Amino acid sequence: MTTHKFEHPLNEKTRIYLRVEALLNQMEQASQFRDDIQHQLFFRSLFDLLEIFEQIQLKSELAKDIEKQRLAYRNWLNVEGVDQEMLLGLLREIDDIHRNLMGGERFGQSLKEDRFLSAIRQRFNLPGGSCCFDLPALHYWLHLALEQKIQDARQWMDTLQPLADALKLWLKLTRETGNFRAREAKSGFYQSDAEEANILRLSIPLDYGVYPMISGHKNRFAIKFIEFSSGQASTQDIEFDLAVCS
Amino acid sequence: MTTHKFEHPLNEKTRIYLRVEALLNQMEQASQFRDDIQHQLFFRSLFDLLEIFEQIQLKSELAKDIEKQRLAYRNWLNVEGVDQEMLLGLLREIDDIHRNLMGGERFGQSLKEDRFLSAIRQRFNLPGGSCCFDLPALHYWLHLALEQKIQDARQWMDTLQPLADALKLWLKLTRETGNFRAREAKSGFYQSDAEEANILRLSIPLDYGVYPMISGHKNRFAIKFIEFSSGQASTQDIEFDLAVCS
Repeated sequence: MTTHKFEHPLNEKTRIYLRVEALLNQMEQASQFRDDIQHQLFFRSLFDLLEIFEQIQLKSELAKDIEKQRLAYRNWLNVEGVDQEMLLGLLREIDDIHRNLMGGERFGQSLKEDRFLSAIRQRFNLPGGSCCFDLPALHYWLHLALEQKIQDARQWMDTLQPLADALKLWLKLTRETGNFRAREAKSGFYQSDAEEANILRLSIPLDYGVYPMISGHKNRFAIKFIEFSSGQASTQDIEFDLAVCS
Repeated sequence: MTTHKFEHPLNEKTRIYLRVEALLNQMEQASQFRDDIQHQLFFRSLFDLLEIFEQIQLKSELAKDIEKQRLAYRNWLNVEGVDQEMLLGLLREIDDIHRNLMGGERFGQSLKEDRFLSAIRQRFNLPGGSCCFDLPALHYWLHLALEQKIQDARQWMDTLQPLADALKLWLKLTRETGNFRAREAKSGFYQSDAEEANILRLSIPLDYGVYPMISGHKNRFAIKFIEFSSGQASTQDIEFDLAVCS
């Protein structure tokens, strides 16, 4: 049965992490400029990221979280039954990523100082503002050879690599803490306690024709299923899989 | 020699027309949902259009402009040397388009009333706001069969067809009024008078490495060429083609 995967952050910080992950993925995917509209998504993702960086101290948050994971994994050193070689490898990876994160510039700093990017950033958010007359420099850039554009994009993205690596690691380790288990939402409703949870992951059979509306925080959450066709709360009993990741 | 084409509107109304044209084209191109990020552009274009419709009375402006063109072309009826059959065909086309425009709903009205679209519109402009947890209904929709999504998109776009047709006609007839002529910008600067002009069209050899910054209005304009590499005003003598369309 085809299902749709769904992730929900249980705190504001994780919410930002997931948004940043989505933007980085989008930027990566659009950076091949496969058609003459993909550049829009590339720059939109990039500018959305810059806006997020301006709003919160993402770097120190992420460094703290990576550090927490390092400490948690250190507790498994010399514990019997734990694959020590694998553990040491992971700890080395965490160390490297943490060091690169701390050694790097403030997220987005060189992108914000880039003359070309700053010139186009302001007008990019106007409705329909990416016309040639609004952004003549961008229009010229679009006429460059594809390899040149891909190279420019790569260079811009490289400045965010320490962030991308750290975020990827933190999310990977966080997601791995949860195991999918079968659950049932009686009359379209499910609630449960959690313990310092960060992310809920759901796998919902498409056949029910519903999507979840989730509320809650790290220690308690509720899931209400909504019928896509009517926009109303579902009254079906819904079997789905749930992983609670902390 | 490869050139880049450039259009510049000489009044606010034409500026909006060109932006709307670009958004309609983008929406059309993204409506095939060829990869898993194109939907972003589709909805972004659609919501940008709705924002423009809320800001200005586009329909009445466009109807007035189409009417002006109709009157101008009527003046050629029964004039010797003018292909009357072609002229009558064009006048019929203008009539049809004008009638459909006036008979249709306020631009974007049914899109604004669409439950699904309204639900996702608000959060779509958050930086990174198209994650599944921000827009669960959109996330569900994305899992529908491709044909279903393309059909939904077609249905939404169809409501804008009278606008698309009228705008296309007006821009086509306007662009046709201008003929490209060779011009030279001495030390990177060119200025000229115009007569009730709406759009400037430029064709600039890429080899100069410049893009134009244009200022002016319907009766007078100036073009300053900027070096892409430095962002500074160019001092080169630049040969380019220019069409002034009214």
